[in-house]
Amino acid sequence: MRREAALFGFREISTPIFEHTELFTIKSGPNVVEEIYAFQDKGGREISLRPELTAPAMRFFVNELTNCPRPLKMFYFGQCFRYERPQSGRFREFYQFGAELIGNPGPESDAEVIALAASIMRRVGLRQYSIRIGHIGVLRGALAQAGIDADQAPPILQKLDKKEYEEAKARMAEAGISSGEVERIIEITKTRGPVEALDKISGEAKDHLAAVFRILSDYGFTNVEVDLGVVRGLDYYTGLVFEMDAPVLGAEKQICGGGSYSLTELFGGERTFSTGFGIGFDRTLLALEREGYEAPPYHIDAYVIPVSEKMKDEAFKITARLRQEGISAEVDLMGRSISKNFKYAASINAQRAVIVGEKELAQGSVAIRDMASGEQRLVAIENLVPEIRCDQ
Amino acid sequence: MRREAALFGFREISTPIFEHTELFTIKSGPNVVEEIYAFQDKGGREISLRPELTAPAMRFFVNELTNCPRPLKMFYFGQCFRYERPQSGRFREFYQFGAELIGNPGPESDAEVIALAASIMRRVGLRQYSIRIGHIGVLRGALAQAGIDADQAPPILQKLDKKEYEEAKARMAEAGISSGEVERIIEITKTRGPVEALDKISGEAKDHLAAVFRILSDYGFTNVEVDLGVVRGLDYYTGLVFEMDAPVLGAEKQICGGGSYSLTELFGGERTFSTGFGIGFDRTLLALEREGYEAPPYHIDAYVIPVSEKMKDEAFKITARLRQEGISAEVDLMGRSISKNFKYAASINAQRAVIVGEKELAQGSVAIRDMASGEQRLVAIENLVPEIRCDQ
Repeated sequence: MRREAALFGFREISTPIFEHTELFTIKSGPNVVEEIYAFQDKGGREISLRPELTAPAMRFFVNELTNCPRPLKMFYFGQCFRYERPQSGRFREFYQFGAELIGNPGPESDAEVIALAASIMRRVGLRQYSIRIGHIGVLRGALAQAGIDADQAPPILQKLDKKEYEEAKARMAEAGISSGEVERIIEITKTRGPVEALDKISGEAKDHLAAVFRILSDYGFTNVEVDLGVVRGLDYYTGLVFEMDAPVLGAEKQICGGGSYSLTELFGGERTFSTGFGIGFDRTLLALEREGYEAPPYHIDAYVIPVSEKMKDEAFKITARLRQEGISAEVDLMGRSISKNFKYAASINAQRAVIVGEKELAQGSVAIRDMASGEQRLVAIENLVPEIRCDQ
Repeated sequence: MRREAALFGFREISTPIFEHTELFTIKSGPNVVEEIYAFQDKGGREISLRPELTAPAMRFFVNELTNCPRPLKMFYFGQCFRYERPQSGRFREFYQFGAELIGNPGPESDAEVIALAASIMRRVGLRQYSIRIGHIGVLRGALAQAGIDADQAPPILQKLDKKEYEEAKARMAEAGISSGEVERIIEITKTRGPVEALDKISGEAKDHLAAVFRILSDYGFTNVEVDLGVVRGLDYYTGLVFEMDAPVLGAEKQICGGGSYSLTELFGGERTFSTGFGIGFDRTLLALEREGYEAPPYHIDAYVIPVSEKMKDEAFKITARLRQEGISAEVDLMGRSISKNFKYAASINAQRAVIVGEKELAQGSVAIRDMASGEQRLVAIENLVPEIRCDQ
């Protein structure tokens, strides 16, 4: 994930594990305190273990990076904490990988960020994933047309986000929206399908999404669909919103969420145009596991065995030389017999044993034993490093 | 640091940011709570942000790894937290890199761990560092000989560790040690010098340290001295203890501390023989900085510029291809003019600009501009990846 982000020109940032609680309540409202690890420190300060990394990243930007050239491309990988009931792929301490791009409101910025999230999933080897893209402006526009002002919209949007249609309908009715309008709004959130689904909407949002789809296709991503039901209830989203799913996870399938937003002015900075995403790292691992992904097995290049007490000094010297040349090596630390050493070498998946014997050493040589085939050959000590390199 | 540890056959472990407070009070005594971030969570549990990583590593070992073959070699890198006054190279949140080896009490294990710490410093490019090695058994033996039992020793050892000789003398006098014995004990803690200094002591500790010095010399480390003043006040140290200094840091010069210890039985496991160290990562960075170390400057391989709106699709396609082939690339996301794009490319230290123009594209080519020399040449798009690879 880190390597892919670097290939896109994103640079890693690192922010503290805890922040002033205010940072998170400013972003997500006072109720967030119920769901996070919030404390008072010995100095009476209200602090919280970070529940997510967008707010810290934007605080860091406002404090330190506002003079950097734009677009500014940052990524991060680290632990986050939520006080909630642990369940499959959902822990109280979890890892988030995310990226934020601060640039302009054009479709290029949004497409770049989505392409990064998708490229990461491709690069880590996830076989099945899909991208759903919506635009917060469509529903906000429809609500505005129905006479709902910006203050009234969030509670309705939150219900629509969770697809709790009955509650959403009730709230819209309370707010005085006619039942015909209510149905039309519900209908919008159910708009989903290939790029042609954009024909059902119009205006700025449509043009923006069409441009994003086109760039994503240039980038080689076609597993993308329109989903105007992606709402992401929070106020600070400003336009495009997106989610990624790993179908192998079943009901809890979302592995990434993001969109364009504006937070910097909440943290005392100037208004900026930003787009970002957060990947649920633990869920992504779970998805890879469910798809049968196997991590390459651990191995070590060489295990060095002195055949007797006298050979130990030479064994340590050889081990040091291998390591300095970038060849991973262990050496007997337990004073074991040769056969027990072979057993240990197998347990750490050593590719070869280097056996330091008295007779061989007298001729300036050691024996290399291929641990898989059991084949053994003599090698001059001065040729040991190139021989092992050639093997690999 | 991670790479060097892997070359030694150590494997990375990762433990939670917070633990039950008890884990740290068991290891370091109840007073440690004053110096750490200790809280109650919403469920009334006493938890603490980890102040160090040896206790978590050993808890993890006892819970999960006791059946692994020995020696078991683990390393870790992560944030730790102490509630103390921040100062140069000393932060409330800091990074620790450490390793633990669980094996046997032989000098091979201790030497391996010291060699890893020293190899890390060499590999990261620290020019000046030294290793001081002592043995807790020497002072403990002298105190026992003077009639002090194991319970009375720690407060005396703590004063000797801090080189607070007057207080140490007072405590020894209180405990009934004769003034001649007191002087002899103080003298021991001042024993310092090359390996020959070992002649001043005798017994098991001497033989053990002599063997460690010999193996370290096999490993190629000669910047090692005896220092019986290395005490490391805590009870769980069992034998060899060591510290590393970066003289460039002046008074606060210690960048690494470690030794052999036994903690597992405190955490409900069987007694084990372990040796480990912790490197103060932030102080090591500070030492590198003071020595004038310069990190390689950030750069990106290519910056792709479409000369007109029409060329954008091709620019995105080329960018995607470069990234997929492992060439780091950015593309204009801001719709800038060519000259502004060159300015941005320089600001991100792009090695070359790839200019997508209409005429050139009609011939299946793009222009590559070397950003350092300003030289520009035409390259067929199909040759772009190999051409950039050859350049590098």
